[in-house]
Parts: sequence; structure tokens; C-alpha cells
Amino acid sequence: MAAADLNLVNQTLVLPAPLPLDGGQSLAQVAVAYETVGTLNAGKSNAILVFHALTMDQHMVSAHPKTGKPGWWAKSIGPGNVIDTNRFFVICANVLGGCMGSTGPESLAADGKPYAMRFPVITIRDMVRAQVALLDALGIEQLHAAVGGSMGGMQALSFAANWPQRTRAALVIASTARHSAQNIAFHEVGRQAIMADPKWQGGDYYASGKGPDNGLAVARMAAHITYLSEEGMHEKFGRKLQDRDVKTFGFDADFQVESYLRHQGLSFTDRFDANSYLYITRAMDYFDLAEEVAGGEGGGKLAQAFAGSSARFCLVSFDTDWLYPTAESRTIAHALNASGAAVSFVELSAPFGHDSFLLDVPALDRVIAGFLG
Amino acid sequence: MAAADLNLVNQTLVLPAPLPLDGGQSLAQVAVAYETVGTLNAGKSNAILVFHALTMDQHMVSAHPKTGKPGWWAKSIGPGNVIDTNRFFVICANVLGGCMGSTGPESLAADGKPYAMRFPVITIRDMVRAQVALLDALGIEQLHAAVGGSMGGMQALSFAANWPQRTRAALVIASTARHSAQNIAFHEVGRQAIMADPKWQGGDYYASGKGPDNGLAVARMAAHITYLSEEGMHEKFGRKLQDRDVKTFGFDADFQVESYLRHQGLSFTDRFDANSYLYITRAMDYFDLAEEVAGGEGGGKLAQAFAGSSARFCLVSFDTDWLYPTAESRTIAHALNASGAAVSFVELSAPFGHDSFLLDVPALDRVIAGFLG
Repeated sequence: MAAADLNLVNQTLVLPAPLPLDGGQSLAQVAVAYETVGTLNAGKSNAILVFHALTMDQHMVSAHPKTGKPGWWAKSIGPGNVIDTNRFFVICANVLGGCMGSTGPESLAADGKPYAMRFPVITIRDMVRAQVALLDALGIEQLHAAVGGSMGGMQALSFAANWPQRTRAALVIASTARHSAQNIAFHEVGRQAIMADPKWQGGDYYASGKGPDNGLAVARMAAHITYLSEEGMHEKFGRKLQDRDVKTFGFDADFQVESYLRHQGLSFTDRFDANSYLYITRAMDYFDLAEEVAGGEGGGKLAQAFAGSSARFCLVSFDTDWLYPTAESRTIAHALNASGAAVSFVELSAPFGHDSFLLDVPALDRVIAGFLG
Repeated sequence: MAAADLNLVNQTLVLPAPLPLDGGQSLAQVAVAYETVGTLNAGKSNAILVFHALTMDQHMVSAHPKTGKPGWWAKSIGPGNVIDTNRFFVICANVLGGCMGSTGPESLAADGKPYAMRFPVITIRDMVRAQVALLDALGIEQLHAAVGGSMGGMQALSFAANWPQRTRAALVIASTARHSAQNIAFHEVGRQAIMADPKWQGGDYYASGKGPDNGLAVARMAAHITYLSEEGMHEKFGRKLQDRDVKTFGFDADFQVESYLRHQGLSFTDRFDANSYLYITRAMDYFDLAEEVAGGEGGGKLAQAFAGSSARFCLVSFDTDWLYPTAESRTIAHALNASGAAVSFVELSAPFGHDSFLLDVPALDRVIAGFLG
């Protein structure tokens, strides 16, 4: 598919005003790097905002500038595709705190040096706030739909709850309304792995040209396990050996799963900034929609978060996702029901665990296409 | 309970002959540090060998010499207790490769320097072989029972399968007949965390007095998550904050679960050798009983592993254990059934995940006491 057919555009907006943050600070000169596909209609009513997940970015369709790999949702977005760019204008912005062009810890602060750990701790709502400012700049009053998987789903929920008039629909895939103790625990392991790497240097590694790659790789390896299902790993790797017939009785990657994980860890360091990883995981851990919107804690208040919304909701979970299991989506569906919202909820069967939202699951395509109408 | 009542003894045996290893090498001057409780009867027929788990050691009853904490199974072993030392002579040996007195990577090689990474890669069967040599030295021909949880269960299985005449019963708790891809993956994360720590120095850190504590702590944190259930973590920690009322918008341990995990990681480094962690996790990853005994792969051959055994077996799993879930124990039970062995199998309900085998689960006490007779 040539870029011309898609009307694929990548650009960066510098927000016209400082961005207020949940932590109480505000950020000036916030850049929002974003990709658009398709054409915004005259009434500006056909926009879909896609929120990306933790380690993704705005390159939903275009090839990744660092890895050259196809956009992470390229298979689903295009003319006549699941998200049909003949009809919809699809937007995806790199999140605040990210490392692909939007303002984040590696961006330069007013003193001309990278923020590093001087970057303020941000929240999921802060990420959304930056993207609402982008919609304002684009003159888009109301979306056709807000769509996201995993951390993208958190943003879609936060968007629908905090800016209830800004979208007619929200599609939330493999996500949660708040991070569980186990979710926080896995993220904390990753952060400690990064911070334990002497090359992290308290976050001030940009000038050295050498970041905490070892720590970041370990963080990625630990996280990656949570993205796959036990069954999926067994199916894919089992106890198969890597390029050998017998165990070496050593510490090489004897098993295919070891080799695969090491590759996942190392290749991640080529495309991701370690400090961004710290800040984005922190934002996810802080996420608790009931607390964010309604000021309360616990599922009982979650319904209040959606009180102002008249959007249609669709929630999708996967039966092998143990990171954000079906029960999390069901909790959201119950809250939406209690708030009187129009909600559909489906648990899909797919063998890939949490990563199912990024992989080839035809039933998911049907749900998305059907919901977007 | 005074030591006199228990007849508690800690000592170390140096094996009289070199120990052959599955990797093809042999180890000379192997020390086996062990604890015994109770009294061996005249017929030497009342011995129970307890195999310890990954990070445990021979101090099943006595206070840990480094931490001062009670023995890891002190609540279950004693006069009139679940494992009744009025009747049984209970033995627990630090595993080969360990760091509490048995020969391992921090032990001195023939050249007077620590083995470090010159230590040979060992297997679960090698660990058991060292303990069979201990039984030989004690003149114990046949055990009343071999007992173990987690990695201890792997050893109990290996013992019953490879030395089928040496025990009349085997009790295997929260264990597996082989490590899954996910099990291997989590261990590989831990090993990479250790090896990524510059203080690891290729394993040669003993002279420096400073080991890879940061890496080892991260390894422990990642592993510790797998020992708890998601429900148990939610019950214990939820999203509760640590000693504060509001989030700090920083990277301190805001959440109790973060504080808890950091403590688990740091305190582990006070009592465990990082190289031992590498070698013992490797042995667990290599474990595949069907392959070990029958030379084959997969569950179909597992029954052959028990062909020579006339022991009674008891398998116990926990419904919230996702590290070695019930299906793993069921696979073993099916193989034992196919081999014609006497086997009982029970899944217990307990909220603590894998760690249930170490915690207060009255139903487990009843199963153990009932099985030991």
C-alpha cells in the first residue's frame, strides 16, 4: 500500500499552551508527534483516535523509523480494512513521556539539557490531556471513536470518562480500569532492573551515549513473559533446544525460549529510552480510573467515572490474557451498565495471551469493524 | 522447643568418593551439610528425607544462621507434630550447588580458589545423588518417605524414579515433572539480571567482598511474584500506599507491594550467593524427569520413569499456584497410574499461590500426617 493511497502523514505539534499535569506542575512547549491516515471530512466528524500501548508509538501504519518494521497496526488500518481509511481519519500520537518525538524525559528542558529524571511524573490522564490538545489544534470537537489496547485502552477509558463529550464511542481492548498489585509488582521489577544498571546514572546517561541497556533488556524480558500466555509459550517453544541437539551444561541460551527472550530484551534497547520506560510504567501503575475521576477507590465508584458519558462502549478481553484478565474488563462493563451506558463486552478466545490484541485474531477484526459501524 | 527434645543436629559430611555428574564430569571432596531431627531407630527404617526448595536450605527446623529466622518447616516438624520426630528421624541436606555448607560455586576448588563459574552445571539428579551418598554414609538403605515441595518435589520425584528401592513413599508438593517454557523464561530473566550486574564480574566476585547484589535482588523480585497468587497479592496489598496518604508523583515505593518486593530482593542478598542462584535455577530448567530416566521426551514416557518403583506416592497441588499449576501434578499422577503405582493426588484450596506449601494450610498438614502414617 503506497503512502499516497493511505494519505499517511507524520508530523509534530508543539502545544500552544503549557500542559497542566495531575501532579500539580505544568509543562511548557510540549511536542506531540503523531501520525494520521485517511482524510478528515469537512464536518470533522470521521476521526478515530488510536491510543498506543506501553512500548508502541505513533507509527501504527508507517514503518518504524528505527527498526524498519511495519506499523504495529498496519494490518488493520487501511482502505477497505478493519479500520477503513476510505471512511475514517485515523490519528495516533506518541504519548507524553514517550521517546518517539513527543515530549518525554529525553527531551530538552528550558536549560537546554535533557529533562532526564527532572521530567515530572505523569499520569494516563496527562497523556490523554496532551492528545485532547492535539484534537483541539486539529479542530476535532468529537471523535467517531476512541480506540486502544492495553495502556491504549486505559487512555481510551480515561478519555471517555474525563472528556465525555469528545467521543461517540470507545473501544477498549485487553485493558483494565486500574493496575493490580501484581501489575505494579512486575513494573517495579523492570524499574529496579533499569535503576540497578550503573549506566543508568540516576537517569543522566544521555550525554554519555550509553544508556542502561542491560537493565532495560532485563525489564523488557520480565514484561514480555507477562504478554504471552503459558499455553502460547508452551506451544511456541516448549522445551525445544536452540540450534543444538543436546544441552550444553552451560549458561548459553540452550532453550529456544531463552534465546527468544534475550533477543526481545536486546532489540528493545535499540528503539526505546530507559527513562521513558520508567515514566510510562509509573503512569500505568498510578492508573485507577475510579480514583482519577470520582475521587474514590474501588469498583463501587467506577460507575461514577462514566456518569457524564453518552458514548457507546465496547470492551474486549482475551481468555488467555493473564496480565489484564477478563475479570478486569467485566468490572468495567458492570460499572458502565450501572451508569446506564450502552456497552457491549466480549471475551475472545485466542492463544497469544495479552499480546492477542496485536496479533492475528480474526474474531477481533470482526468485533472492531462491527463496533466502528 | 529446646534442641534437646528435638535431638537437633547440624553437621557436614565430606563424601568418601568423587561424585559423578550428569554433565559427564565428577566432583571430588563434595561436602554435604545437613540437619537431622529425631532419632534413627535400630533398624534404620524410620528416616524421612526432606528435600528443600530453590532458596531454602538444610535449616528446616533450626534457626537460620544468617537471618536468625525459624527453620522454614519448623512449624511442621517436631514431637507430636505433622512430621512427628517422636517417630521419625528427619534429614534435610543443603543441595549440591547451594551456599549453606554443601559444595557449590563459592566452595574452594583444588587450586584453593572458589570454583565460581568453573563449577560444573549440575542437575536435579546430581543434587539427589549427593544426598543418596549421604544416606549411604548414614547406613540408611530405605527411607520411610522422601518429601519435598517445589524444587524439593522435583528431587523427591527424581529420587523415587532413579533410586526406586530407596524409599517406601514419596510426597511431592506443588511441583512438576519438568520445567515449562514459562518457568524457564522467568529463571532466565533472573540469571540475566545477575549477569548484567557489573559486580558479577563473570562470577569472580568472591575476593572483592562485593557480589552482584543489585542483580540478585532483581532476580529475587521477579521470582517472588511467581510465588504468590494474583488474588493473594490483591488481598495483601491491593493498591494500598506505603506509609503515606497520597501518591508522591515520584519513584519511591509509593505502593506497599513495591516496598514489600524491594525488601524481599534486598534481604535475599544477605543470605544467598548469586552464583548458587545461577546454578540451581539452571538445574531446575534442565529438569525433565521423562527425559532424565527414560531418555525420552514428553508425558507419554513419564510413566516409564516410575517403572521400577514400588513406593506409594502422594501428590499435592494448590489451586492458586500458577508457577506449577495443578495440571502439572495431574500429569504426574496419570503417569504413576499408568505405571501401576499406588498414588493419591489432591488439589488443595489455599490463597497463597505457590508459596502455600510453606505457609499455614491446615489441609496440607492433614494430608502430610495422613500420608506418612
